[in-house]
Amino acid sequence: MLEVHLPDGNVKSYDIAITPMDVAADIGAGLAKATLAAQIDGQTVGFDAPLPTEGSVNLRLLTNKDKEALGVMRHSCAHIMARAVMRLFDGVQLAFGPTIEGGFYYDFDLEHKLTAEDFPAIEAEMKKIIKENEPFERIEESREGALAVVKDIDQHYKIEHIETGLSGHETLSFYRQGEFIDLCRGPHVPRPKSIGAYKLLSVAGAYWKGSSDNKQLQRVYATAFFNKDDLAAHLEKLEEAKRRDHRTLGKQLELFAINPLVGQGLILWLPKGAVVRQQLTDFVSEQLKKHEYESVFTPNIGKVDLYKTSGHYPYYKDSQFPPIHVSDDEEYLLKPMNCPHHIMIYKNRPRSYRELPVRLSEFGTVYRYEQSGELNGMTRVRGFCQDDAHIFCMEEQVEEEFRKCIEMTQYVLNSLGLTDYRVRLGFRDPDNGKYVGNSKVWDRAEQSLVSVCKNMGIDAVAEAGEAAFYGPKADFVVNDCLGREWQLGTVQLDYNLPSTERFALEYVGADNQMHRPVMIHRAPFGSLERFMGVLIEHFAGAFPLWLAPEQVRVLVVSQKFEEYARKVEAELKQAGFRVKGDYRPEKIGSKIRDAQLELIPYMFVIGGREMETESVAVRDRIDGDLGSMKVAEAIDKLKQEVAERKVRQVFTGSAGLGTAATGTKDEY
Amino acid sequence: MLEVHLPDGNVKSYDIAITPMDVAADIGAGLAKATLAAQIDGQTVGFDAPLPTEGSVNLRLLTNKDKEALGVMRHSCAHIMARAVMRLFDGVQLAFGPTIEGGFYYDFDLEHKLTAEDFPAIEAEMKKIIKENEPFERIEESREGALAVVKDIDQHYKIEHIETGLSGHETLSFYRQGEFIDLCRGPHVPRPKSIGAYKLLSVAGAYWKGSSDNKQLQRVYATAFFNKDDLAAHLEKLEEAKRRDHRTLGKQLELFAINPLVGQGLILWLPKGAVVRQQLTDFVSEQLKKHEYESVFTPNIGKVDLYKTSGHYPYYKDSQFPPIHVSDDEEYLLKPMNCPHHIMIYKNRPRSYRELPVRLSEFGTVYRYEQSGELNGMTRVRGFCQDDAHIFCMEEQVEEEFRKCIEMTQYVLNSLGLTDYRVRLGFRDPDNGKYVGNSKVWDRAEQSLVSVCKNMGIDAVAEAGEAAFYGPKADFVVNDCLGREWQLGTVQLDYNLPSTERFALEYVGADNQMHRPVMIHRAPFGSLERFMGVLIEHFAGAFPLWLAPEQVRVLVVSQKFEEYARKVEAELKQAGFRVKGDYRPEKIGSKIRDAQLELIPYMFVIGGREMETESVAVRDRIDGDLGSMKVAEAIDKLKQEVAERKVRQVFTGSAGLGTAATGTKDEY
Repeated sequence: MLEVHLPDGNVKSYDIAITPMDVAADIGAGLAKATLAAQIDGQTVGFDAPLPTEGSVNLRLLTNKDKEALGVMRHSCAHIMARAVMRLFDGVQLAFGPTIEGGFYYDFDLEHKLTAEDFPAIEAEMKKIIKENEPFERIEESREGALAVVKDIDQHYKIEHIETGLSGHETLSFYRQGEFIDLCRGPHVPRPKSIGAYKLLSVAGAYWKGSSDNKQLQRVYATAFFNKDDLAAHLEKLEEAKRRDHRTLGKQLELFAINPLVGQGLILWLPKGAVVRQQLTDFVSEQLKKHEYESVFTPNIGKVDLYKTSGHYPYYKDSQFPPIHVSDDEEYLLKPMNCPHHIMIYKNRPRSYRELPVRLSEFGTVYRYEQSGELNGMTRVRGFCQDDAHIFCMEEQVEEEFRKCIEMTQYVLNSLGLTDYRVRLGFRDPDNGKYVGNSKVWDRAEQSLVSVCKNMGIDAVAEAGEAAFYGPKADFVVNDCLGREWQLGTVQLDYNLPSTERFALEYVGADNQMHRPVMIHRAPFGSLERFMGVLIEHFAGAFPLWLAPEQVRVLVVSQKFEEYARKVEAELKQAGFRVKGDYRPEKIGSKIRDAQLELIPYMFVIGGREMETESVAVRDRIDGDLGSMKVAEAIDKLKQEVAERKVRQVFTGSAGLGTAATGTKDEY
Repeated sequence: MLEVHLPDGNVKSYDIAITPMDVAADIGAGLAKATLAAQIDGQTVGFDAPLPTEGSVNLRLLTNKDKEALGVMRHSCAHIMARAVMRLFDGVQLAFGPTIEGGFYYDFDLEHKLTAEDFPAIEAEMKKIIKENEPFERIEESREGALAVVKDIDQHYKIEHIETGLSGHETLSFYRQGEFIDLCRGPHVPRPKSIGAYKLLSVAGAYWKGSSDNKQLQRVYATAFFNKDDLAAHLEKLEEAKRRDHRTLGKQLELFAINPLVGQGLILWLPKGAVVRQQLTDFVSEQLKKHEYESVFTPNIGKVDLYKTSGHYPYYKDSQFPPIHVSDDEEYLLKPMNCPHHIMIYKNRPRSYRELPVRLSEFGTVYRYEQSGELNGMTRVRGFCQDDAHIFCMEEQVEEEFRKCIEMTQYVLNSLGLTDYRVRLGFRDPDNGKYVGNSKVWDRAEQSLVSVCKNMGIDAVAEAGEAAFYGPKADFVVNDCLGREWQLGTVQLDYNLPSTERFALEYVGADNQMHRPVMIHRAPFGSLERFMGVLIEHFAGAFPLWLAPEQVRVLVVSQKFEEYARKVEAELKQAGFRVKGDYRPEKIGSKIRDAQLELIPYMFVIGGREMETESVAVRDRIDGDLGSMKVAEAIDKLKQEVAERKVRQVFTGSAGLGTAATGTKDEY
């Protein structure tokens, strides 16, 4: 006898083998028609998945109202796309075709080079297949049976995958739809009619199993939604994201460059980008001073032995640049993080409880070897500068220090208009043995984090098993103006590096005994490179006044006002503004248009009336013409805006484009 | 017939083979007695060197009044020291014993471990040898004869050196004094009686021929002068230099640390040192802004191919860290200089003459692999931050840009109280083929440098053959308060990197044609690490107010004034000062002593009277008690001193300790 608990509280009992669809039919024909998939005890499964025959399960039936059904439908749509491609082209070999954030792809190996011009034909063929509405049928086979199937349909990637990748599986599943059969774990929707709207997006090269040693395949990206409106909204957001792409804007606005002769994933901050970076670090430095951090400078390399002591080598070897080999007992590593260096500074002399917490900060550039396929503009790089700091404190100071770190991160993010974020607490999984330190300390630490967040009114969600192995942490997951998620700031407690096995950190307590300090790693921005990338996209390149590379442009209506305009320009410079004058013999309209295109926050337009009255006509990038003001008055207005670090952007778009990147101080 | 021209204009003729001593005797017995060595056509030789038998020479006889005789005498003293050591200890094997700046050393291989406790006995033995006053006798031998001599005296380092190091020499010379005979090029003074005063200074390990693969020898350092006063003055200066040693002060004042686990020659800037560095870079940044430089940030590594293009690899391979080898076609180098990165920024888009000069600046950390024996605190390191910039300009802008660079360097050095410097112009040697670029351009460039210096009233000395191979340069050689020379700032013209063979830099001229820009490399400090090391020694750790890590200390006469004192402390902080309060229950005298020892520029002492009158008793590190002032008045006084970047140090010592280090941007 099986007890099925439904979300509405109802409980149904069955003494025969059933599937979710049977339960749906049991409830009503309408529900059975709408059911696309199900969740058994929180796990998404197919409509036709066998339920256990005894015990008790929670069952949730999924329809097109449930976001969990979207992925199932998209995977079905991937099969339909593959089927369409096979109908249209000869000799198609199928590789993998998974769902991804926002859609799905399928990797094909075929002679014909697919381009966007092929998309309408493929989409039309898909339309036909969907109209035919043949069901998706699950077939299970033994290894031998499965091999026979894929040999029969002559799909050699599938043969290889069964022989190598799936060598441990005794039973394998396929999904058949009409003439199309594919090795597939599923699940799928019952029939393709639930695919409301779909679109092929792009095609790109991709290696079989991601390795450049293998053959390059053709990856077709696509997406699907339950209805046309959702698809349209999604495509619009993709367009907006493309318009805001920091790689495009970074080039266009001359903010940064990447040069193959310097190296992939290594950022050259061009003068305009460097101005923004300097403003950002000055801003953080101000906060560091206020919070009584001490600044230090450390080298970009360290002996490999240092990282053996810290445990970062060879443990993280795969994500690091190989060592610099001088001799067998003299090897250096590009530092993958700053903590060991800061620890050597802490250890430079005996420490007393009186001087704790010691807060050491550095804008430290670190290097990690991301695979070239993972690199992406400024947001996934191989060298980046962290707004890093390490706090060495007593156990009893952890809570207060943690709170201050959270406050600083909040302040920094809020000041940049990144007000939409959540705090994710990474806690240990008590059943997992990988975590260092005793469980009482962990409990206390985790409890501290919860209580700090609660006292601060932060709605932090704790996730078990998401802690670093060395301690619990709080990550700031920020939604940008398109609703995309970015993990930026982080605050992490560390019981590992101070330990006897690692650096054996100590301080003399009030009791004259030696004690072990706790370390806190924290970085409000995370990585300056990634943060900059996110800011460019968030602001669509239109930085707030205090950050803008060029803050004001002085424009003359005619060249006869140049002398007066240059005086205004000099006054602005004197007042500390980044300013340029446009004295070209062009029409004022075209000069305004240029400044607008270059996203200059303010234009001071100067004509005869302005010169006579020693004033300027102020033009705001956002609000347009603000009328004439005395020069001093205009400068004061701008000064005020800078002092307040005002963020007054025009944002378009809304929530829901999905997670865009993971952390930079993750588990380090 | 030989014509001998003497410095006083007299000319003497000889038709027999003669030596300088013969000429001295010819002039008078007194001069013969005083003659220690000679200069023939500017070349220092021994008193007994044979003059040519025909033609004409300029002869200068050297006595103990001539500084050129000092080195000759010191080398004789080295022989006497070696003779004394051999008399006192058994089984002494002699290695090399040259003169060095400020004295001489001799490397010995002997069983007995020499220590300073052995010095009095060695000095006493030397005294006996000098009193015996046996002459130094030059002996010339054929290779075979020379080998027989050193085999006879069983000196195996000498045997090895004749067999390998001197394998090209057909005739070799020895100097004998009594029972002591040593393979030696000479020259020597006639007899040891001219050694007026000498002293053994220290003993240290040193490898035979400087290679750690060889046996470690015992190197005894010593010095000698013609009279006791000169020796005393020298020893005093050594003491003062020791007292100012930046390695000792750096540790004591917690400015920087070097940790073997991080790596030799890699500086950890501790919080207090980091404050000074930040002040220095803020100061330079202010100048950069004023001079319209654009700041950039570039990674610390670059592809090896980049440095092959620049010519820095493999040409400078020996002074670089080995490459980071990812794969055969993916190798990175820790950047040994910033220029190639800045060039990639220049090349990032087409350039027009309108935007030249482009001035790109960066506090860029670079890495060079100095041999471990060469490393010295902060002044010889393996990683250092340059206050670097590269100017890309038109040929016709070179002179003005060069002038501005010189002006900035002067301003920076003067602001730091380093007012005693000379400018050394490095020009090409027209007979040497290593210089790139055509000679007309070189002539014009060198002429520009001369004329700029002349117009600026700088007494620059041009040295032929001292140019970098890519262009002429101006180095600032600074004398610190002990008169030691340091090569710090540099300005270098570069015709090489912009060339077709290298990066083929271009700009579109007013004529719409492509032209080649000239590059200027410049760094007023040179390296922040070295500059800091020099500053620590120059100021003996007592930094001027604007640089001091802690600027003011607030001291209470009794703890009952703590509340008021904390208010004063807060006001100072508010005003931007780096301040600490000393509220310990100690006597005020001991608190003042502590602050004085920590070299805090100002103490604000607070007792009852100060609290009543809302004032502070100001105590100046240099001038002592300045009496009571209202808090605001005291703050204004200090603000003024910071704004002026006033340097008001008490300097001791004077000129003449010799050259201390060479350049950091040399030939790069």
